[in-house]
Amino acid sequence: MADPSRVLILNGPNLNMLGLREPEIYGRTTLSDIESACRDRADALRLALTFRQSNSESELVGWIQAARETQDGIIINAGALTHTSVALLDALKLLEMPVIELHLSNIFRRENFRHRSYISLAADGVICGFGVTGYELALDAMNRLLTKP
Amino acid sequence: MADPSRVLILNGPNLNMLGLREPEIYGRTTLSDIESACRDRADALRLALTFRQSNSESELVGWIQAARETQDGIIINAGALTHTSVALLDALKLLEMPVIELHLSNIFRRENFRHRSYISLAADGVICGFGVTGYELALDAMNRLLTKP
Amino acid sequence: MADPSRVLILNGPNLNMLGLREPEIYGRTTLSDIESACRDRADALRLALTFRQSNSESELVGWIQAARETQDGIIINAGALTHTSVALLDALKLLEMPVIELHLSNIFRRENFRHRSYISLAADGVICGFGVTGYELALDAMNRLLTKP
Amino acid sequence: MADPSRVLILNGPNLNMLGLREPEIYGRTTLSDIESACRDRADALRLALTFRQSNSESELVGWIQAARETQDGIIINAGALTHTSVALLDALKLLEMPVIELHLSNIFRRENFRHRSYISLAADGVICGFGVTGYELALDAMNRLLTKP
Amino acid sequence: MADPSRVLILNGPNLNMLGLREPEIYGRTTLSDIESACRDRADALRLALTFRQSNSESELVGWIQAARETQDGIIINAGALTHTSVALLDALKLLEMPVIELHLSNIFRRENFRHRSYISLAADGVICGFGVTGYELALDAMNRLLTKP
Amino acid sequence: MADPSRVLILNGPNLNMLGLREPEIYGRTTLSDIESACRDRADALRLALTFRQSNSESELVGWIQAARETQDGIIINAGALTHTSVALLDALKLLEMPVIELHLSNIFRRENFRHRSYISLAADGVICGFGVTGYELALDAMNRLLTKP
Amino acid sequence: MADPSRVLILNGPNLNMLGLREPEIYGRTTLSDIESACRDRADALRLALTFRQSNSESELVGWIQAARETQDGIIINAGALTHTSVALLDALKLLEMPVIELHLSNIFRRENFRHRSYISLAADGVICGFGVTGYELALDAMNRLLTKP
Amino acid sequence: MADPSRVLILNGPNLNMLGLREPEIYGRTTLSDIESACRDRADALRLALTFRQSNSESELVGWIQAARETQDGIIINAGALTHTSVALLDALKLLEMPVIELHLSNIFRRENFRHRSYISLAADGVICGFGVTGYELALDAMNRLLTKP
Amino acid sequence: MADPSRVLILNGPNLNMLGLREPEIYGRTTLSDIESACRDRADALRLALTFRQSNSESELVGWIQAARETQDGIIINAGALTHTSVALLDALKLLEMPVIELHLSNIFRRENFRHRSYISLAADGVICGFGVTGYELALDAMNRLLTKP
Amino acid sequence: MADPSRVLILNGPNLNMLGLREPEIYGRTTLSDIESACRDRADALRLALTFRQSNSESELVGWIQAARETQDGIIINAGALTHTSVALLDALKLLEMPVIELHLSNIFRRENFRHRSYISLAADGVICGFGVTGYELALDAMNRLLTKP
Amino acid sequence: MADPSRVLILNGPNLNMLGLREPEIYGRTTLSDIESACRDRADALRLALTFRQSNSESELVGWIQAARETQDGIIINAGALTHTSVALLDALKLLEMPVIELHLSNIFRRENFRHRSYISLAADGVICGFGVTGYELALDAMNRLLTKP
Amino acid sequence: MADPSRVLILNGPNLNMLGLREPEIYGRTTLSDIESACRDRADALRLALTFRQSNSESELVGWIQAARETQDGIIINAGALTHTSVALLDALKLLEMPVIELHLSNIFRRENFRHRSYISLAADGVICGFGVTGYELALDAMNRLLTKP
Repeated sequence: MADPSRVLILNGPNLNMLGLREPEIYGRTTLSDIESACRDRADALRLALTFRQSNSESELVGWIQAARETQDGIIINAGALTHTSVALLDALKLLEMPVIELHLSNIFRRENFRHRSYISLAADGVICGFGVTGYELALDAMNRLLTKP
Repeated sequence: MADPSRVLILNGPNLNMLGLREPEIYGRTTLSDIESACRDRADALRLALTFRQSNSESELVGWIQAARETQDGIIINAGALTHTSVALLDALKLLEMPVIELHLSNIFRRENFRHRSYISLAADGVICGFGVTGYELALDAMNRLLTKP
Repeated sequence: MADPSRVLILNGPNLNMLGLREPEIYGRTTLSDIESACRDRADALRLALTFRQSNSESELVGWIQAARETQDGIIINAGALTHTSVALLDALKLLEMPVIELHLSNIFRRENFRHRSYISLAADGVICGFGVTGYELALDAMNRLLTKP
Repeated sequence: MADPSRVLILNGPNLNMLGLREPEIYGRTTLSDIESACRDRADALRLALTFRQSNSESELVGWIQAARETQDGIIINAGALTHTSVALLDALKLLEMPVIELHLSNIFRRENFRHRSYISLAADGVICGFGVTGYELALDAMNRLLTKP
Repeated sequence: MADPSRVLILNGPNLNMLGLREPEIYGRTTLSDIESACRDRADALRLALTFRQSNSESELVGWIQAARETQDGIIINAGALTHTSVALLDALKLLEMPVIELHLSNIFRRENFRHRSYISLAADGVICGFGVTGYELALDAMNRLLTKP
Repeated sequence: MADPSRVLILNGPNLNMLGLREPEIYGRTTLSDIESACRDRADALRLALTFRQSNSESELVGWIQAARETQDGIIINAGALTHTSVALLDALKLLEMPVIELHLSNIFRRENFRHRSYISLAADGVICGFGVTGYELALDAMNRLLTKP
Repeated sequence: MADPSRVLILNGPNLNMLGLREPEIYGRTTLSDIESACRDRADALRLALTFRQSNSESELVGWIQAARETQDGIIINAGALTHTSVALLDALKLLEMPVIELHLSNIFRRENFRHRSYISLAADGVICGFGVTGYELALDAMNRLLTKP
Repeated sequence: MADPSRVLILNGPNLNMLGLREPEIYGRTTLSDIESACRDRADALRLALTFRQSNSESELVGWIQAARETQDGIIINAGALTHTSVALLDALKLLEMPVIELHLSNIFRRENFRHRSYISLAADGVICGFGVTGYELALDAMNRLLTKP
Repeated sequence: MADPSRVLILNGPNLNMLGLREPEIYGRTTLSDIESACRDRADALRLALTFRQSNSESELVGWIQAARETQDGIIINAGALTHTSVALLDALKLLEMPVIELHLSNIFRRENFRHRSYISLAADGVICGFGVTGYELALDAMNRLLTKP
Repeated sequence: MADPSRVLILNGPNLNMLGLREPEIYGRTTLSDIESACRDRADALRLALTFRQSNSESELVGWIQAARETQDGIIINAGALTHTSVALLDALKLLEMPVIELHLSNIFRRENFRHRSYISLAADGVICGFGVTGYELALDAMNRLLTKP
Repeated sequence: MADPSRVLILNGPNLNMLGLREPEIYGRTTLSDIESACRDRADALRLALTFRQSNSESELVGWIQAARETQDGIIINAGALTHTSVALLDALKLLEMPVIELHLSNIFRRENFRHRSYISLAADGVICGFGVTGYELALDAMNRLLTKP
Repeated sequence: MADPSRVLILNGPNLNMLGLREPEIYGRTTLSDIESACRDRADALRLALTFRQSNSESELVGWIQAARETQDGIIINAGALTHTSVALLDALKLLEMPVIELHLSNIFRRENFRHRSYISLAADGVICGFGVTGYELALDAMNRLLTKP
């Protein structure tokens, strides 16, 4: 039986704060809860999951560079760096594996400066607006991309 | 046992031509094939599926208006009308059900005039760039939106 | 006694949905109610009224073209097509009768893409922001335009 | 019997020159003639009319401020200040009464710098392009706004 | 002797009104006259001509889609849709035959919004500004494109 | 003992209306209250205060011109004129004393047209968003600017 | 012998401050000196000169309106209002006499917002960059415009 | 029998290099070949042809100026100067004869800076995208323009 | 007696270099001197001060996140990150305490790219242009914000 | 007696065509007539005049370069090159003598692309809109610039 | 003999990945190879070389700040940060030594967002498009800048 | 021994004026001095150098066209034509040899209109900001480009 495909989920600045503020309004789901749900989903899909968060552009760039030899696909919710980081774009363009861009909210209904995504220029697919459910959809999507003949 | 949720998948101009041209390049998947895959997936999710295509903005507007009383969610791949039709936006904004915007390609990597989407302004979530797989992802996503407490 | 002047009121996409959704918020006035009020007002002004709605740009273009020989003035609430249809502009420019542009809301207080009106380029006058009352004002205005020496 | 509603009609810069130049082309209607027509229409509608003109932005701002306690509605043809005066906008936004924006010509068919209106951002409704007839339409419209339940 | 090449001439919104208004100014040439001249020219060139007009974007899209199997070349005067229809662009891009864009007037000397042509992005060549003569030039041009080795 | 420094506080259009409308929402602080607080603060700082408001650009320009010989510093809340008056800018640039720009609200979080300030081009410092407290901060800041060696 | 032509020279905001500040840098020429030079030049040209300055847009508008019946030509250095006043433009457009726009400095070498002139849209000619000499040149130019057959 | 009409074909910078580089890709047709084809076509149409090329804007301006008295129509492929030369535009506007703008490629499918044409502002008609065939079409078009009653 | 309010002052990239270069021009005040002055002022206001500098966006984000539970207000001079960091904006928006934006210079008189501030979108108030004095003003302002009922 | 000052008047592309076309509309004044008037005026002012025209940017650049050693002032009507030639700007910036920019028409009332002048960036003063009279005004202005102490 | 000049070569994000991917296409030159070539060239020029790479903006800022006292010149290939980092610009502007901007590719032939360089605003010279050879050219250029009298 | 590679250095408008004006400021290096330095450097590199300057776009275009058969590489300092000449771009694109763009100053620190370079679109590499030293660097760079295997 083949080794499971390896998938890296990267989370950018401030996503570590999910669920910690005004839970009565924004819900109580934390990034840790999301990681658990992703692990369950990855297990079901027989994917080997690595799940990380950083507020640092350079740390994220480093993880992407390292993924070239250790991962088979990347799902990235770059948070605010989506709109400002050409360095992330360049790092992602060096990869030859599937890249999925993910956002909790529909960024096209927010402020104008959030409509531009540098990540999109390197992403195969984009999923946004589905909240935490989007993570599971992204894993499903990645699984299909990795198993297409 | 509850009635199944009803989901409408709408396809805009030229999507009826999928798979009919240069199959060696673009693949042989036709819109009819997509419909079949969607029906299979809808059955698995216990969703009642209506699947339609039109080249006409007004026909699409009419179907959206009618959906107010006959559907529980809409998935729309508006094709070229994505970028030009305020009428579709207005029709979608009259609905109180989940709306998912879908594109075969990653529109943010194409010509500039394809970066603007009027549909996004009324959509809960957006899925693009996954090819025909995106239809199944959209059905999964819709199922989750419809079953959230 | 002279024949009454003939006035055509055209309504664009989605105006057929007026009053059908969340009446506690948006009111219960339907397009049919508006038509009745217009008929009353037209009778009082001795105007022969034709009142139509379509979601289709081409049907609206056709009605405008036909109006050349059958109407004396046009009042048009083009809805979303206001902002996107050069075809309606061109059709209206072929007329030699008064044209009044009408909007329920003050479009200049809405999203940026609703600030541009192609209809304005062919309209003698514009009335917007008065809700359904605007229809009666437009009939009064048309009556004056048609009776000016 | 209730007191009549009080309506203020404000006219901005250069409107005092109406009818004084090239009457064979622009007509002989002066601002004084317009005031007379407005008085007749106001009497018919049982409205108490105040009619004023000024070339001064600050005088117009002062009249709008004073209107808070002495008027029930304002109709304003701000002339050139329409396009340049944020001070008028701010003064109008302090009011809690209906505001109608009025222009003799269809400003959207004139030079680009006349397409932007600061007044629109504070106006309930806009009437433009009907020449002096617009004043009577505006009074009719105001009457309806003031008598809506 | 080989079958004649088949050429489709498509005309967009409002072109059916040619010659019907103010003939003393715009001339009396109707679209029907143009069709006759085109038929004469096509006969001389041994081209099998289909000549159509529609005010409907979707009908035009449909005719273009159908042309894939029934025509050898398309000449399109899309009228106002030139500037607004991405759907026509997408339909034309699906073809593998010569496409010629045609306009009666020199659109680059008209309003700014007429300077952008979506059709140009799919057209091999563009002919504009020659009035009804342009149709004959377009047939000549198409004949050359179809007979080039 | 040296004469106290003389400071002029100028208030532009509509600031005379502060506190007069919807006090339950916007508070009851009037411009007169602000003047009193400023006088107290000025006394404490041993500053000779002149406090003025005008809706008139030309009156404000005149006061600024006169300040050249009668004041040692200017604090200006130009209200709406902030965004439109080059004349105020030019008047302020003729001064050789400290100029502080003041706004009650954070103008950078309001409409786009309020983001441009002509006053800033002539101001040493800017204070905005602190409400009426900003006046006292501005006096403190002016005091420091005037007493720097 | 014919009556002398009557010429009005208008000066806008802050021009009353000329020569009053830093004379060692900007020179000591005051507006009063300019007026004297203009009177000498006007006498030599047999022109009847009126010379005025105001910081007030409305006062300037009023003087322009009054000039219709009392002057034969207008030279206007509108200062900062050049770039912001549509009201001055509209007042000038009501005149049927020659209008010359004048600036002390070359406004096209200053800040971007000084490159746009509303006055230019109503001016026959423009003279800028010649300092106080420009006033005499403008009088010469006006004399020629008034004496052309 | 009437004298033949005189037609000038002008070619701008770098068109003298046609066919000299990478013939396996761009074809071997040189400007000299085009001239021969044009001469044949002109003979057939009984047009007296002058055919010229220059890399110099001023030389082209001079030829256009001289054409006023020596030619009956101009066909101009201005090459790169199309996008940068106002001088060519001004020269062409001084003519009272038909002007046809010609391009080998469809400039609207090339870089953005090639979408603007100063030539178009003075041209009666535009033909582009037909390669060398466009020259013959332009001669045909010119012949029709010159023989229209 | 209540615990003192806790205030965090954050300094962004390159502010650690203050006073170290060309002291004869820029003065000799170092960030350490500023910290001392802030400590004195905080003591006088009975505020508990934390004072930090970092060149790292992610470190600043981390400090802001941590401030949620350990501070009562934030004063931030984000330096160059003011204009480029959406991540700082998002971190600040997660706070429910007062935020004051601070700049040494008047950023609106510097290069265009320094006119946009992402920080402003999350700041209650802005203070800029007062040099090191601005820090003390910001502490005064924060004290007032924290003690308002 | 001192040598007369030497003044060069340069005329750009197409100005050699003045007066040669439609004299009933544009007048019969040719560039040669203008030169004569300039010579008369120069004699009266005791200026040594050189008067030249060229359609060539490089020839104009050469004349400006040569003027460094042979002229005392330059008046330039660069025609169409005003709007496109950075080379002329650079040549003029190398001079240390007065430069006057001249235009027959008021370029600010013409097409948008004529509003930008590269010449203005190097000119001391600008005179436009006075037709051929402008040449004499420019000589007068130059004389004053050259004789100022 | 004088001490050798000290030169710092800084490399920004993702440059550590050079040569590691698709060597058959991009070549096999790694950053380590470049460093070796630079060391050879520096030795030949008698320059003391420090060669560093970081994916972190803050680390690069820190190195630049430290260079004030330890280096005589900086060559910087900032990679993606070229286009987004004002912090790097500010750090470089604090230096009083030569700064050379370096890019492997010609950034002006890539995507639009790569055309803007913040580094250029602080750089003495720019070298781009020469691939790894550019490093040696930059060292040569730096040597000349450091040895100019 | 192989023939030396042939390199053409082209200089555009106004570069012939180098060193002739205000030598105390700009230095006394003339274009002739630069040519000498280039000849020395070319000899050292065993390159056969042709060195030319012209103020004429068409002459430069001609030299570039001729270089196709007579040169192995081109270094071009196009001066002002850098920003305005599409003709130079087109001529350079016809070449199949290395092209290096050269500027004396760092054009990105000058006026906005100097930031756009048409030459860059055809250049392999760009060197700017190194003054006359840049010429030698460009020769070194060209030598490397010509000797790469």
